[in-house]
Amino acid sequence: MNVIVGQSGGPTSVINASLAGVYQAALKAGAKIVYGMKNGIKGLLEGRLISLNGILDSDLKIELLKRTPSSFLGSCRYKLKEIENDTEEYEKIFTLLKQYDIGCFFYIGGNDSMDTIGKLSAYGKKIGSSVRFVGVPKTIDNDLMVTDHTPGYGSAAKFVATVMKEIICDATVYGTNYVTIVEVMGRNAGWLTAASALAKGEDCVGVDMICLPEIPFTVEGFIEKVANIQKRKKSVVIAVSEGVKLPDGRYVCELSDTVQDVDSFGHKKLTGTAQFLANECAKKLKTKTRAIELSTLQRCCGHLTSRTDITEAYQVGGAAVLAAMEGKSGVAITLVRISDKPYQYTTGTVEIEKIANLEKKIPVAWINDTHTDMLAPFFDYARPLIQAELTPFYVDGLPYHISLKE
Amino acid sequence: MNVIVGQSGGPTSVINASLAGVYQAALKAGAKIVYGMKNGIKGLLEGRLISLNGILDSDLKIELLKRTPSSFLGSCRYKLKEIENDTEEYEKIFTLLKQYDIGCFFYIGGNDSMDTIGKLSAYGKKIGSSVRFVGVPKTIDNDLMVTDHTPGYGSAAKFVATVMKEIICDATVYGTNYVTIVEVMGRNAGWLTAASALAKGEDCVGVDMICLPEIPFTVEGFIEKVANIQKRKKSVVIAVSEGVKLPDGRYVCELSDTVQDVDSFGHKKLTGTAQFLANECAKKLKTKTRAIELSTLQRCCGHLTSRTDITEAYQVGGAAVLAAMEGKSGVAITLVRISDKPYQYTTGTVEIEKIANLEKKIPVAWINDTHTDMLAPFFDYARPLIQAELTPFYVDGLPYHISLKE
Repeated sequence: MNVIVGQSGGPTSVINASLAGVYQAALKAGAKIVYGMKNGIKGLLEGRLISLNGILDSDLKIELLKRTPSSFLGSCRYKLKEIENDTEEYEKIFTLLKQYDIGCFFYIGGNDSMDTIGKLSAYGKKIGSSVRFVGVPKTIDNDLMVTDHTPGYGSAAKFVATVMKEIICDATVYGTNYVTIVEVMGRNAGWLTAASALAKGEDCVGVDMICLPEIPFTVEGFIEKVANIQKRKKSVVIAVSEGVKLPDGRYVCELSDTVQDVDSFGHKKLTGTAQFLANECAKKLKTKTRAIELSTLQRCCGHLTSRTDITEAYQVGGAAVLAAMEGKSGVAITLVRISDKPYQYTTGTVEIEKIANLEKKIPVAWINDTHTDMLAPFFDYARPLIQAELTPFYVDGLPYHISLKE
Repeated sequence: MNVIVGQSGGPTSVINASLAGVYQAALKAGAKIVYGMKNGIKGLLEGRLISLNGILDSDLKIELLKRTPSSFLGSCRYKLKEIENDTEEYEKIFTLLKQYDIGCFFYIGGNDSMDTIGKLSAYGKKIGSSVRFVGVPKTIDNDLMVTDHTPGYGSAAKFVATVMKEIICDATVYGTNYVTIVEVMGRNAGWLTAASALAKGEDCVGVDMICLPEIPFTVEGFIEKVANIQKRKKSVVIAVSEGVKLPDGRYVCELSDTVQDVDSFGHKKLTGTAQFLANECAKKLKTKTRAIELSTLQRCCGHLTSRTDITEAYQVGGAAVLAAMEGKSGVAITLVRISDKPYQYTTGTVEIEKIANLEKKIPVAWINDTHTDMLAPFFDYARPLIQAELTPFYVDGLPYHISLKE
């Protein structure tokens, strides 16, 4: 029996640790060949499979894989058609699975990718296939339901909090009035933006305001808050989610003239929120401003990862294989927290429909009354996830990665 | 006898290692008090001096200082008036120096800051002052004359090359046509942008084009080159200097509608080059694009530094004290390379007028014929400077810094 694994959606710094977990656990469980689909389900539909056995053939390579950011197998943003409308894609996929003697199908991804697992397992059930479909959670956005948190979030949060501390160091040097607005990823859930609250400590004053997509945003209210902070502080540093929305539901970045793209899941490409707000501050408050977009660095910064996160990413990969071997299908692996201090967790499973296409937002009770900072429950939740480091292998001064040769 | 030290211009990740070097060498050389000027010469003019002896009173704090990015003492961009026009500022400064029994004056900065050292030592000479003025070089731009390279460059170059590798990992995952344009700091000299060439190696295809300010730039020529690369590669990653200029001398970013600020040295604030070029590519080539500004992270990323760079930054601080103790004044410390492989260097001194207000550019012979990549001499030059790492002290998951309490 063979297994197949794919990666989908936006990459993270630790998504390959989950791939390593699936690979090693599958071999241990008796799989003969672990196939990788290149560019996820899209590549599979094009018959682009590769055997990973010949590629990940040493402990060193597997360790390198864990320390290589972004999706080793490539990714896609591809939505399978509704089964009622069109079964051609499904027939093609199940023919391939049979042809390659695939017993288990693992898909590492976020809530869109879980939609793929859900549809495939539903179709499999319908045609009486014995293939098991298990979702392996990943996303820097941390917006998956049921699971306590999602692999990928801890490292992205560690990066955001770290660079926020460094940006604060930088922004204060001139001692002049300065408003720095840092744009953080997160379309509808502010988990990653909230991580900037972790910057605050005995050695850092922290960010002065956090703007989350969970809280309706007005430009006037924002400017007023900045003006108030400027009364007591020269350097103002603000973390703003790319996904902050006006009361009418439009994204703030839609107010700027940046070109808007839409992906195949219908999501608008968000960018330019910080620049737009910085320009507004410059105009209304006559202050110097700087807009910083953390951009893709948040999700590909393999040079700064949370060891906790990498370990968990590896473990959910292994747990997915065990779940499949136990006969489970149409499920995703979850992380279940046992305690905050000391931090303890285990893995679990959840039916895919409780997780696919849904988004988990920050509880409003974790946000302060003025909607500018996080409260204690958030710190208790997030702090364990950024603990400890896993350094890349530095070769000749730079992190060394493993990559698929074309 | 006491000494005074200040930091000026844009901060770097290792500028505090030079401060540590000055501090420890000065105490060893017999200075009673090491004063710090807050916010450089601007703060000195306002009488804002602090004794560092009570602050840096343990080995741990000095080690933390070396691992804390940005200017511990604060910075300024302040140009002293020409001595012929106005001596009031000079009289004020020299009165303060006498009052605090200052024998040596150290200023850690770039070419603008060396202008300050030059003017002060010239005025000192004129009035027969015995105070010695020594410049300690720092800049991520690496654009100082005479010195082989400048502390701050190695760490910024390591950051740029590292994230370029990570961005390339990220940009290739979807296997679709994608043009990623990464904007790197460097007003007139492309040293830091050139560092993106270091990303290329056996594990990374490297960036596809490098646009330096040394080479006149046309938008049409750029689009044509991108179109040509797209014929053979889907994901195109380009490093572009914020300072690329049109044949008529205007900065490319001036073609966009971003607000332009000017600092007190008359430098325009450059930003938006990558976004402008990405928009042009989207329009002309009908391709998906992404613009990434590395922004201040390049100069404040204390979490990713070159150990070689930190060591050298520390040593030039010490060398400045030794030079002053030997009676030198109106000089800056230089790094003198002895060999590339194995890398060896020593420190030297240079008269300040050979370094102040001048800019060192990349030799054209180090750039390939098509002006898209660097040649071997650049790699021999830059590779040693990014070697080895100095990890921050991580406390509760984040780098711990030392900072001046207000």
